[in-house]
Amino acid sequence: MISIVILGAGNVATHLYKAFSNTESTSVIQWFNRSLDVITPYKNKVDITDNLNTLKKADVYILAVSDDVIAELSSQLPFENRLVVHTSGSVSVYDIDKKHKRGVLYPLQTFSKNSKIDFANVPICIETIDKKSYPLLKELTTSIGSPTKRINSDQRRVLHVAAVFVNNFTNQLYRIGHEITESEGAEFDLLKPLILETSKKILELSPFKAQTGPAKRNDKKTIKKHLKTLESKHHKDIYNLLTASIQHTHGRKKL
Amino acid sequence: MISIVILGAGNVATHLYKAFSNTESTSVIQWFNRSLDVITPYKNKVDITDNLNTLKKADVYILAVSDDVIAELSSQLPFENRLVVHTSGSVSVYDIDKKHKRGVLYPLQTFSKNSKIDFANVPICIETIDKKSYPLLKELTTSIGSPTKRINSDQRRVLHVAAVFVNNFTNQLYRIGHEITESEGAEFDLLKPLILETSKKILELSPFKAQTGPAKRNDKKTIKKHLKTLESKHHKDIYNLLTASIQHTHGRKKL
Ligand SMILES: NC(=O)c1ccc[n+]([C@@H]2O[C@H](COP(=O)([O-])OP(=O)(O)OC[C@H]3O[C@@H](n4cnc5c(N)ncnc54)[C@H](OP(=O)(O)O)[C@@H]3O)[C@@H](O)[C@H]2O)c1
Ligand SMILES: NC(=O)c1ccc[n+]([C@@H]2O[C@H](COP(=O)([O-])OP(=O)(O)OC[C@H]3O[C@@H](n4cnc5c(N)ncnc54)[C@H](OP(=O)(O)O)[C@@H]3O)[C@@H](O)[C@H]2O)c1
Repeated sequence: MISIVILGAGNVATHLYKAFSNTESTSVIQWFNRSLDVITPYKNKVDITDNLNTLKKADVYILAVSDDVIAELSSQLPFENRLVVHTSGSVSVYDIDKKHKRGVLYPLQTFSKNSKIDFANVPICIETIDKKSYPLLKELTTSIGSPTKRINSDQRRVLHVAAVFVNNFTNQLYRIGHEITESEGAEFDLLKPLILETSKKILELSPFKAQTGPAKRNDKKTIKKHLKTLESKHHKDIYNLLTASIQHTHGRKKL
Repeated sequence: MISIVILGAGNVATHLYKAFSNTESTSVIQWFNRSLDVITPYKNKVDITDNLNTLKKADVYILAVSDDVIAELSSQLPFENRLVVHTSGSVSVYDIDKKHKRGVLYPLQTFSKNSKIDFANVPICIETIDKKSYPLLKELTTSIGSPTKRINSDQRRVLHVAAVFVNNFTNQLYRIGHEITESEGAEFDLLKPLILETSKKILELSPFKAQTGPAKRNDKKTIKKHLKTLESKHHKDIYNLLTASIQHTHGRKKL
């Protein structure tokens, strides 16, 4: 049985608490948050605390707190030589105070507190400084059904940037689709099946092979029509840049 | 029973043929293509032809041919005053020769010949010049299980542009995610669950509400780190433009 203390009570911490509480092979023995009221509803199920000096001894301490706080909180922990990990995609593993054994469990997924998460759909990227901590973290993440992958810092760094492209930026393209359709009273809902199909397609085809449309075909007539249809300069700029990007990828344009 | 003649044998025509052949209330009585070999495999199931002069009388003629060919092919049809529709998102309904009753059935989905299509996931946008043709087109598209929507030319125009944003441009962001991760030997596959989740999220939340990440939070430290991680100027340009776009949408920046 792997014993865990979770620190933080935001989106990630809350989902991790629920997942780890439901396995046979792990046990959340304590939950820390600086404001106790957030975790008070769980007080009958787990030992809760807002005092770092009362932290119990555990196999692993998971700091699922805001990126900016990780370094400071880790140095405030009143013990050393135990395994302390954070869950951030962008914070260095070396930000954790060096008095600890250090690691990262980066869940490559978008969490919000109220939506259900199936950890089978949450790949967890594991990074450790000393090799010995790896098997324990691997066992931990496997216990909640997550696919896991051992990665290094450079890989975590690029995965975090790539996640911004496929998640935040993609969502912004949906938003622009919303703005464009609404400008003529057309329904954004009509685009939803296409949005789903576009994402499902890459399960079978590489994004390179999946590409279609006027930019890839270099269909100048349609591209011109589209630019005429777009009213905002801002939408036009994005249209031009992403059209050039597709043409570059498919060998039609030097950038 | 609505009788249909399909013209063309590409992605859209082939899927429409299969769908309309499988309903009780419609019948494909003939299939035309300029090159007969493509449709020869179907010759025991439907009357096939490559000769416009042998076209049978039908309730509706569907021109599912390349955009550039629609006008010419429609004027070559050796009859008048019958209902002729095309399936394009970007071609005007007035491109169809005015000797016909004219309309458009624009399927808002991405088709490839080899992948299966469930028409329940293909909204079909219907446009007609005379109002009388609408009920027939509505019955036709409903028979294959498609959600349908009556739209006007301006709405079809914006839907087509919006489809480029949410389909082609989104797919290009996946491609860039692929390029960035591969640059460090990280696996693109790790991003696939996030890609699926991002698209599913807009079934419940508007893209505005679904947005998260460093651009929305105006997390300058992370944005700076990301720009440092990106090696290609081209990736940086897209990062900057879409970050500014998100900040504009969420009230942090004037464009
Ligand atoms: N959300 C995601 O989709 C996602 C995905 C992958 C990785 N991550 C990473 O996971 C970590 C947590 O993210 P989150 O989304 O769960 O954050 P969140 O919902 O904003 O929660 C932040 C937590 O940090 C605590 N905190 C903030 N300042 C603190 C301080 N000075 N001292 C002690 N605790 C403090 C907060 O405590 P209070 O409750 O008292 O405010 C809260 O419990 C971050 O490193 C993030 O990069 C997030
Ligand atoms: N693919 C999609 O995802 C999609 C989605 C929505 C709407 N659409 C629209 O649907 C229509 C068809 O698209 P598609 O993807 O099915 O095209 P496609 O696969 O490229 O097929 C084009 C068809 O047009 C025929 N054709 C080309 N030039 C011709 C000519 N001069 N005379 C007669 N026939 C000619 C071709 O005949 P051959 O077989 O002899 O070459 C072929 O059957 C287009 O208007 C397109 O905008 C497509």
